[in-house]
Amino acid sequence: MIGPEIDRLIQLLAKLPGLGPRSARRAALHLIKRRDTVMEPLAAAMAAAAASIRTCATCGNLDTTSPCHVCLDGGRDRSTICVVEEVGDLWALERTHAFKGVYHVLGGTLSALEGVGPDDLNIPTLLERASRPEVKEVILALNATVGGQTTAHYLSDRLAPCGVAVSRLAHGVPVGGELDYLDDGTLTAALRARRAL
Amino acid sequence: MIGPEIDRLIQLLAKLPGLGPRSARRAALHLIKRRDTVMEPLAAAMAAAAASIRTCATCGNLDTTSPCHVCLDGGRDRSTICVVEEVGDLWALERTHAFKGVYHVLGGTLSALEGVGPDDLNIPTLLERASRPEVKEVILALNATVGGQTTAHYLSDRLAPCGVAVSRLAHGVPVGGELDYLDDGTLTAALRARRAL
Repeated sequence: MIGPEIDRLIQLLAKLPGLGPRSARRAALHLIKRRDTVMEPLAAAMAAAAASIRTCATCGNLDTTSPCHVCLDGGRDRSTICVVEEVGDLWALERTHAFKGVYHVLGGTLSALEGVGPDDLNIPTLLERASRPEVKEVILALNATVGGQTTAHYLSDRLAPCGVAVSRLAHGVPVGGELDYLDDGTLTAALRARRAL
Repeated sequence: MIGPEIDRLIQLLAKLPGLGPRSARRAALHLIKRRDTVMEPLAAAMAAAAASIRTCATCGNLDTTSPCHVCLDGGRDRSTICVVEEVGDLWALERTHAFKGVYHVLGGTLSALEGVGPDDLNIPTLLERASRPEVKEVILALNATVGGQTTAHYLSDRLAPCGVAVSRLAHGVPVGGELDYLDDGTLTAALRARRAL
């Protein structure tokens, strides 16, 4: 017999990705035992984020400001736009510290099966941004999946009249990867895109 | 470049058991994308629980009321007290629906190494409860670890003058377990405690 408030907390925690019913109970117990040091700060951080999260009007990123922190940053190179499917992809690229341009979050990929057309994604705003004179290159950093590649081809066609260079991420052997464990498609792509040493 | 509020949310989520840095990011992204349906209810449930959680003055359980929901329940058998180490153990026993008595949460086990003595655990209150005339049996449902068993022996000695029956959980083959995979200690215990069919 667990009190209804605790039970509700467990139910809600179990909705997080990576937490099942058992680990949600463990997390709830952890929170309950450390209510001053963990539970209250987390509740406050969550409420603060929930109240302030908004979609960046420029790039579609989710952040606590609009324009988002990337678009606001005066040090970013506005001539290069990196197009990603989801905010998680933007976070992944930011972690590399390898990209100093700005982003554009599509919000998904085209899918005839699921009825996702160009107007359901942030494509009109991308075309508008790519037409601005300061933009020189659009990098299509979409997933190497059927949906991602279909969308990349569609965008490549639509971006042609904008007069920008359009590129995509390289395919190849993952750094640290072993050839023996790679799928044929990746290996073929790596072979075709071989570079002179 | 992730905003400071989101970064703080990720840091705090990563403190939950079962969530590392990567899954904390996934959880944060999940929350941010579903701020009305998941993030706000979870923040509210957490704040409500944090504000109302208290330690049951009778049994040491953590709940939103004191006495806790178990101690308040008129349908529980007050003649049997089940002693557990932690609140998580109480939750595990409650899930079985096999125990209809009341509990006593020690808050840990005796440990000379870590300087945990009898007065650091809820032992004085247990002895006081066990001395009440309505209490007939104390079940020591402690972990089958060195600490748990040391504490069980100590409690058994201290409970002797209280005039209550003292029992412990049975050792044996886990239901669904295979003999081949069992450790020698469990198998020996199961053999010694064999029951007539």
